Amino acid sequence: MQLLKTSDEGFEKAFRKIVNDRRESDGDVTQGVTSILNEVQRRGDAAVIEYTMRFDGHHLTDDDDWRIPAENCARAYDELDADLRDALELAASRIRAYHVAQMPQDRDYTDAAGVRLGARWHPVDAAGLYVPGGRAAYPSSLLMNAIPAKVAGVGRLVVATPTPKGVTNPLVLAAAHLAGVDEVWRIGGAQAVGALAYGTGRIQPVDVITGPGNAWVAEAKRQLYGVVGIDMVAGPSEILVIADGRNNPDWIAADLLSQAEHDPNAQSILITDDAKFAWQVEDRVDVQSSMLATRKTARTSWDDHGVIIIVDSMDEAPALANRLAAEHVELAVDDPDAMFAQIRHAGSVFLGRHTPEAIGDYVAGPNHVLPTGRRARFASGLSVLDFMKRTSFISATPDALSAIGPAGVALATAEGLPAHAKSIEMRLK
Amino acid sequence: MQLLKTSDEGFEKAFRKIVNDRRESDGDVTQGVTSILNEVQRRGDAAVIEYTMRFDGHHLTDDDDWRIPAENCARAYDELDADLRDALELAASRIRAYHVAQMPQDRDYTDAAGVRLGARWHPVDAAGLYVPGGRAAYPSSLLMNAIPAKVAGVGRLVVATPTPKGVTNPLVLAAAHLAGVDEVWRIGGAQAVGALAYGTGRIQPVDVITGPGNAWVAEAKRQLYGVVGIDMVAGPSEILVIADGRNNPDWIAADLLSQAEHDPNAQSILITDDAKFAWQVEDRVDVQSSMLATRKTARTSWDDHGVIIIVDSMDEAPALANRLAAEHVELAVDDPDAMFAQIRHAGSVFLGRHTPEAIGDYVAGPNHVLPTGRRARFASGLSVLDFMKRTSFISATPDALSAIGPAGVALATAEGLPAHAKSIEMRLK
Repeated sequence: MQLLKTSDEGFEKAFRKIVNDRRESDGDVTQGVTSILNEVQRRGDAAVIEYTMRFDGHHLTDDDDWRIPAENCARAYDELDADLRDALELAASRIRAYHVAQMPQDRDYTDAAGVRLGARWHPVDAAGLYVPGGRAAYPSSLLMNAIPAKVAGVGRLVVATPTPKGVTNPLVLAAAHLAGVDEVWRIGGAQAVGALAYGTGRIQPVDVITGPGNAWVAEAKRQLYGVVGIDMVAGPSEILVIADGRNNPDWIAADLLSQAEHDPNAQSILITDDAKFAWQVEDRVDVQSSMLATRKTARTSWDDHGVIIIVDSMDEAPALANRLAAEHVELAVDDPDAMFAQIRHAGSVFLGRHTPEAIGDYVAGPNHVLPTGRRARFASGLSVLDFMKRTSFISATPDALSAIGPAGVALATAEGLPAHAKSIEMRLK
Repeated sequence: MQLLKTSDEGFEKAFRKIVNDRRESDGDVTQGVTSILNEVQRRGDAAVIEYTMRFDGHHLTDDDDWRIPAENCARAYDELDADLRDALELAASRIRAYHVAQMPQDRDYTDAAGVRLGARWHPVDAAGLYVPGGRAAYPSSLLMNAIPAKVAGVGRLVVATPTPKGVTNPLVLAAAHLAGVDEVWRIGGAQAVGALAYGTGRIQPVDVITGPGNAWVAEAKRQLYGVVGIDMVAGPSEILVIADGRNNPDWIAADLLSQAEHDPNAQSILITDDAKFAWQVEDRVDVQSSMLATRKTARTSWDDHGVIIIVDSMDEAPALANRLAAEHVELAVDDPDAMFAQIRHAGSVFLGRHTPEAIGDYVAGPNHVLPTGRRARFASGLSVLDFMKRTSFISATPDALSAIGPAGVALATAEGLPAHAKSIEMRLK
């Protein structure tokens, strides 16, 4: 853990390094990913079979090796412990309600010049959701990706998830059933992303690919951006907790650890104006982390990437927060709304002392797929818009064309595009 | 020009080739672009100076070589021919009006469980607009990129435009003045995109980069996606004209040529149910193109990429249009609305016989930056949303947390994330 004080001389340099270190993407896997994608595009199923054997130790032979049948998902759902099923249902219904209200409105109007203008939104035909295997196989992620797609009206919703050595995750299957996923393919890594984007003999291509993954998956999505739509280049998770000294240090320590336990590269940052409180939190992090089943990951993250910043006044916090543009920002202060009004760059903000970030990971309703690595400067969390696109339209009557057409002719002529000019001119009365 | 009939045996194969040929991106420049971007990131201004000398024959030494002062843009505007200035003003005001109505609404509500939820939109801090030099230096493109950014509220709006051998384009400068651009840098190519994304000694980095460019610019944007936001990977322009036999063949020929004259790789496609009309159009394309100043480009495009598809019935047209997912779609038929209702994938649709596509390039109001290369399957035209991002927020009272928290604890525990569970559990009453 790194301790900084804004009043220290070296602060600006050290803080700038923290900000910039999160911007870099992982260049190491670029060429490996390019080669996998080329193979999948060229050789389709055969390449996917080879990579899945090599990376997951899973042999794709008959249909059941390739796909998990819908019955298995339904069964996994039925066999859930009742409390867990209720929790999943509550999460799904709250996520659905929040995203239904995101649906964009079509526009269709005629303006003063008599030109009819507007835009219509349509869902994409097919979306692919990547669901990691192993440690990061989270049913909550499946809900957070699948439900916005379904709310958007996507007709075909496909999950790709690796099943190392053939082992499936019943919670993920149950969530797939609950969210109405149409196909579940047992493939992972860059090869799965390539298969979804290009299509193979067995797998029909999709239009948009979303969902978290390791560096290979993230790089594959980045390289295929433009062949398909993608949600965002995702990096390790981050939390910034802005807390005054009137917080329970145990609560704040738990919040910092809740990010740290995700990933050794996750980053937890505390900004406070109370140095004594900072040390109490640090102490509680030590005590709590030693008791966690996830202590190894959590400790590595906190030791390597954790930061505590002591500010002279909480008034300094919003500017630092805007530079960090963190994925998650907690405002554990007396008047969180006043501080929130000054925060322009953040994935999601958690207001007040009783809103731990983890509530947003599961059951609050807003999406937990959020921009990382300072991308909240320009990117938003996942929404129904990621699964939709807008078609604008124009309709001119002869009179309307006569009103605005001559200006078009003048501009086309000035730009040296005579056929543009002609196509308008011929229709002028 | 390629002639296809849906009733021909080989149609499906030939049509599929047309669809798939537009999907590929230009792999040839990938490594060259990577190397330029690395140099610009590492060496900043020095690398930009070298590449600008090499590619544009323009030496960047003092301030005026680097930047075009605001006074020069204002002067270019004042010196415009009055008709042209009026045309630019009309275009700008119509584009502004259309995009103002796109502004998204913030949300802030408390749901039945007592959880306050919502989302706030903010503009990005800085946006970079690429404006090509030479043939494709279009003032209309500058307006189409700059006005949505300004409407979104972007504080710093930066143009990068190459000035080969030092030559500037007064129309572009005038448009920059009209649109309120803050900085104009005389740089182009992948090096300009790199300079905007990473920043250099002279140039502060931006958060989003939009605007058209050649294959190098497009690839640079693609590679930097994630470091900055970008509008979309753009390819050669396309038009699909769906026209019955009751159209003036001269009008339709002009529409096809208005795309063809953009770029030798542009694609114009006509779908009609009237073979005789098709031949009349083809004849008018020949006659009109021979008289165009842009005939070389237009002919190459039409000869190499033009397609006429004869359908047995116009009812076949929407399904073909959805597979082509073209940038521009004209519906020159009696009931364009009925046909539009069946079109799900298109960048922009032009309804009826008096709405030539060119009107949308200049003065109609909707954005002319639209998805190409079948990307209308998943992408939208440029809008204010490309210059904004959304921060979601959650605020729970102790009671609200008690209502939804236990489900979060159950899910976190099931996912093997004990610190997540703890951070909620500790706060439950």
